[in-house]
This record gives sequence, structure tokens and C-alpha cells, in this order.
Amino acid sequence: MKCRAAIAWGPKQKLEIEDVEVAGPQEGEVLLKVHATGVCHTDAFTMSGEDPEGVFPAILGHEGGCEVVEVGPGVKNLEVGDHVIPLYIAECGDCEYCNSTKSNLCQTIAPTIWTGFMPDGTRRFKSRGQDIYHYMGCSTFSEYTVVPEIALARINKAAPLDKVCLLGCGVTTGIGAVLNTAKVEAGSTVAVFGLGGIGLSCIQGAVMAGASRILAVDINPDKWEMAKALGATDFVNPSEIGGSTSEYIQEMTNGGVDYSFECIGNVHVMRDALECTHMGWGVSTVIGVAGAGQEIKTRPFNLVVGRTWKGTAFGGVKGRTELPGYVERYMSGEIELDSMVTHTMGLEDINKAFDLMHEGKSIRSVILM
Amino acid sequence: MKCRAAIAWGPKQKLEIEDVEVAGPQEGEVLLKVHATGVCHTDAFTMSGEDPEGVFPAILGHEGGCEVVEVGPGVKNLEVGDHVIPLYIAECGDCEYCNSTKSNLCQTIAPTIWTGFMPDGTRRFKSRGQDIYHYMGCSTFSEYTVVPEIALARINKAAPLDKVCLLGCGVTTGIGAVLNTAKVEAGSTVAVFGLGGIGLSCIQGAVMAGASRILAVDINPDKWEMAKALGATDFVNPSEIGGSTSEYIQEMTNGGVDYSFECIGNVHVMRDALECTHMGWGVSTVIGVAGAGQEIKTRPFNLVVGRTWKGTAFGGVKGRTELPGYVERYMSGEIELDSMVTHTMGLEDINKAFDLMHEGKSIRSVILM
Repeated sequence: MKCRAAIAWGPKQKLEIEDVEVAGPQEGEVLLKVHATGVCHTDAFTMSGEDPEGVFPAILGHEGGCEVVEVGPGVKNLEVGDHVIPLYIAECGDCEYCNSTKSNLCQTIAPTIWTGFMPDGTRRFKSRGQDIYHYMGCSTFSEYTVVPEIALARINKAAPLDKVCLLGCGVTTGIGAVLNTAKVEAGSTVAVFGLGGIGLSCIQGAVMAGASRILAVDINPDKWEMAKALGATDFVNPSEIGGSTSEYIQEMTNGGVDYSFECIGNVHVMRDALECTHMGWGVSTVIGVAGAGQEIKTRPFNLVVGRTWKGTAFGGVKGRTELPGYVERYMSGEIELDSMVTHTMGLEDINKAFDLMHEGKSIRSVILM
Repeated sequence: MKCRAAIAWGPKQKLEIEDVEVAGPQEGEVLLKVHATGVCHTDAFTMSGEDPEGVFPAILGHEGGCEVVEVGPGVKNLEVGDHVIPLYIAECGDCEYCNSTKSNLCQTIAPTIWTGFMPDGTRRFKSRGQDIYHYMGCSTFSEYTVVPEIALARINKAAPLDKVCLLGCGVTTGIGAVLNTAKVEAGSTVAVFGLGGIGLSCIQGAVMAGASRILAVDINPDKWEMAKALGATDFVNPSEIGGSTSEYIQEMTNGGVDYSFECIGNVHVMRDALECTHMGWGVSTVIGVAGAGQEIKTRPFNLVVGRTWKGTAFGGVKGRTELPGYVERYMSGEIELDSMVTHTMGLEDINKAFDLMHEGKSIRSVILM
């Protein structure tokens, strides 16, 4: 079939909206109508050319709210009309990761997800006579996309796809990092570095966990209002501090916070996030994705005195098993999404969504198809 | 009183055995007869001049098996004749660390412990007319020493002090790192980097935890026999591997070990120890103490994919509460100490103990007073 899609033809270029050919679903695959998609920093990161795994031309996008329109042979648990959220981390249900209670990192189809192919090593998109790469197994910047069944979470049909699409990445990552990865306890102090969609979702997660104090850390004071609305109690602007951010936070919090989260992808901030935690029990979780070749550093003494450095992908959430529950938590009012969608627009305006992101003016733009 | 002690007059010098004046115990303090003391790499590290907290002249030593000979005013729970192990991490029982189940890092007297003084800011040793610094709050390289009550674990009098002195540092650190800090589960795979007293004790801890496979990693193949006797199943010699030690271990273990422990203090090995753990759930614990200013590094991606970097001091063991139980586990045969004491000698031969250590010929030398 033919449809409209936004194609990234190369790094550092605007997306081009044009016709693509979408091949039908193969064994175990599902053809989806994308109703809505969020625009995430990770898409921008790949467009920047910094992403070591970035390949072009590709159809980006990975926060989708979708409907099943055709199922390929061998698809077992999905049918036409189901509402689904594509997963960039699949859940086959039967590998060592799926069988572990400690990890959500199903690797069954990861080698093709992260190199731009479908599991059988081929592609389903063509434009200008060329094969177009898939992206994170999702490619939601297209009216139609093809995704393997094991990378689809079936959700409540009553949930608005233009909101719950955000659960396909940022919001789930932030909340999951707090609840699943760091396991923040009631009464804890928390610092969140970077107040984009993930950072704000960490704040939500910290509120859900019953944190007593939530420090929102960002060099853009415009982010403070939303952070406060979601439950942040203190605001720290590193650009207004004379010295070390970690020492400043340690002083504010009687020795450091119990938990911190890095939601930017800046290796220097990752260090601050670790070092601002309390000796003896501080846990810092890296969420942001750093550029190719960059490294985090600290003195090992900072670990020897009882700090823990962790990381998380998709908030440690097993997508098919747990994501439907996140949708229900949104439906019941426990998770806030509506106010995070600061802008909506059609696919033809998708480059504007990236401009708003780079200008720090949006939390999340949602593209309505 | 006067007694014999080994004094470190400056960095990179041999210890001098000579008379020291030991002042009586002050408020809350206890005068101890040191019956036996282990000789640990940390003592050697301070002697090397690399220890940023090293001060001279000092009486080193911190693995003591001691007997109470006099109690100062205000001492509540110890009496003359009690057997004790001095603690370089005190346990006051009433600070935020002692009240936390997550930490053993009581800070009540840490500022004086780590600067060479008694809690009141003065010292109890004099030699050649000079005040001599205390060391790690213990100074067990002396026939008599003075230690605050809150830094003394009272132990079973039936336990041989020339063996259980090793529980004052290395053995407890290694076993505690496995059981308390990393919380290794039965069936896990474990890699231990560095087969000194701490590394061998990690192997013991891994056996106690029911690990299914224990990789002993050291460039000295002479260490293999003891490691195997304690329960190691595989030996890895990084100097015989062409490429990366972490990749080699990942290949040996189908993706990496579940847990690793760095028992050397080498920041490059700390990186290998992290990176050889399994994606999704690998936990690496730093135990070794690195030189001043050195930093650990890795790509943050290594954490984002589910690895955890931790550290531990004294194995996370709360000394007064938990150490007596370690002594009982030795008495019942659960903890092996006897074979770790490869050499014994009198105080006058203490420099030989350091020579044996540097030559890689000893596991632990114990000085008998």
C-alpha cells in the first residue's frame, strides 16, 4: 500500500513528507495504522548524526498510538481493530531476559530492531525507489507501519491514542525508572536532572512512590512551572550556582538525596547526579543516552562509600506484560499525560515539533495522522 | 605505659620497631592488649605514600585480635578480660547510618578515625618525644593500643585471636561484599578480580551464597591453588589473554557473569569487572581502594542496559552488631580462616610480612605479640 510518511534522508536534514510504499505484514508481523505519535529527543538525537546506530534513509518515530489493520501469518494474539503501542524493546516471553524478573531487555529481535530491519532481515518501506530503514522497530512517523507481534502491547481500546502514545517511550521510561529500576521508597528525597518528557515523568514517578522532597534540576527556568505542577518541591538551576551542583544539592539536602535520575544524556551531568546522592545508600540512575564514545567518570571512592550507579532502558518495563497496566493507570487518573502534550499538529508540520523541542518550548508534541 | 610498636615514620620507609608511650584510656575509651594482628594491603598502601589520607609518623595496623586491659570512664558494655576486634568503621548505634538498614558507615567518629586522632582530637602514642598518629582508629601494630568503645566488637572468648583478627578487615570485607552488598543468589555466576585476602574471601562468600560458577581472575597463577581450595571453579589470567578480559569472560559465561568483585584497587580492572557482567542484571562491586585522584570510567550505555556499579566498605557489615556472628561462623566451620594465615611472625619481623605480600608469597601474615 501507499501512504504518507516523514523520511529522514540523512543526518542533520529536515524530515521530508512524502509517499512511501508499505509492504504487507510477513510471518508474525502486523500492519498498523498510526493514529498518533509523540516526538521524542531520541528521534532528534538520531537526526543529529550523533547516534552511533543511526542509519539513513529511515522513517523515525517510536511513540505510537496505533490500530491493527492487518495481521500476517502466525500472529497469535492480535486481531484487526486492536489498539496497540509499538515497543522498541520486544517481549518474546521466552528468552533469558523475559524469564528473568530483573530485566526487560528481551534480545530476541534486538539485532534487527537496532540496525533498521524487520526480524527477517528485510524492510517494508520503499520511497524514491529505495528501501527505507525502520527505526527502533517502530517507525511511527508514517501513516502505516509494520511491527512484529512480539513488539506490540495491546491496550484498552477506550484509551485516547493521542495521549497514551506517550507511554511508548518517555513517560513509561521516567515512571518505570523510579518505580522499577531505582525502587524509590515513600519518604525518600529525589533529584531529577533534566525536565523534558522523561524528567517530568520521573517527577510523576517520585510522587507516585511517595517521595518527600523532589528536586527538579534544569538550566531552563521555564521548565519549573510544569515540574511544580507535577509535584516537584524545589528547583535547582545549575547555571545560577557558582560551584559544584552536586555539592550544592548535598548542602540543600543534609548530605545528599536518596535517589537521582539523569534524563539528559550528558556525561558530566551523570557524574553530578551520582555525586549528589547520599553516602551510604544513594542510588543514581542513568536514563539519558550519551553521544558516541562518551564516558562517565567518577572516583571509585564515591561507590565504595555506598553509592550505587544504575541505568535503565524503557524504565525496566516489560512492554507486553506491563504497559497495558500503565494505560489503565492513566485512565484512572494516576498517571498524568494530558498536560504533557503541549502541542499537536499534523504530519506535514512535524519539523515544527523538532523546532519547538530544540527551543525548549514544548514538553511533548504529538503528531495526529 | 610503655610498650613496643612498629612505627611508620614516613612514606616509603620500613617500619621501625621501638618503644612507645601509650596514654591511658579517656572518656569512652578502652586500653587493649593486642594479641595478634593481620598485615593488610591497606597498611602497605599507606606506607607507599599513595594514600591521600596517610599521615606520619603513625602506628599502622587494623586487623587486630585484642583483649581489654583497662576501661576509661563512661565505658558501658565492655570489661577487663573481654576479647574484642577493633573496627575502623565504628557503630555508635544512634546516627542516621546506624539507624539505616542500608549502610554500615557510622560517621560519628569518622572525622578523627581518618585523620589519625582519637575522638577528642588528641593522640595516645608518643615516641622520640613526638606525638604519633593513630591509624584507621585501630593502630594494631603495637603491643597496646587505645580504641573507643563504639569501635570495638566484643567476640567469643573461645575464638583464637591469631585467626579471628583477620575478620577485622579483609575476610569480613570480602564475604560481606558478596552477602550484604551484592546479595549474590544461589546459582549465580561470579567473577572475583584479585586473589589477595579480600578476593579469596569473596570466593568464600560466593560459595556460602551457593554460586554455581566462580571465576578467579589474577595475573599470578600461584594464587590459583588457594582459590580452588576455597571453591573457585575457573581461573582467568588476564596477562595470557590476547584481548579484552571483559569480552573473554563474557564469552566464557554466555554473556557475562551475574556478579563481579574488584579486590585490587586498579581503576582499569574496575572497568573490566563492570563490563564482564551480564547485560540486564549484572552487578559489579568495587572493594579495592584506588590511588589518589584516579577515576573509574565506562560508557553510560553499559549501565543503561541494566548493569549496576556498586561499592562497599567493610563488606557492608555493621561491626558491633554483626561481626560477633562472623566469629561464630568461623567457630562452626562455615568461614575458613586457618589456611589464609600462610605466615606468622613476631613484631620484630613485621617488615618481612610486607616483603612476602609484595612478592605475592603470602595470603595473610599474622603478627603474634
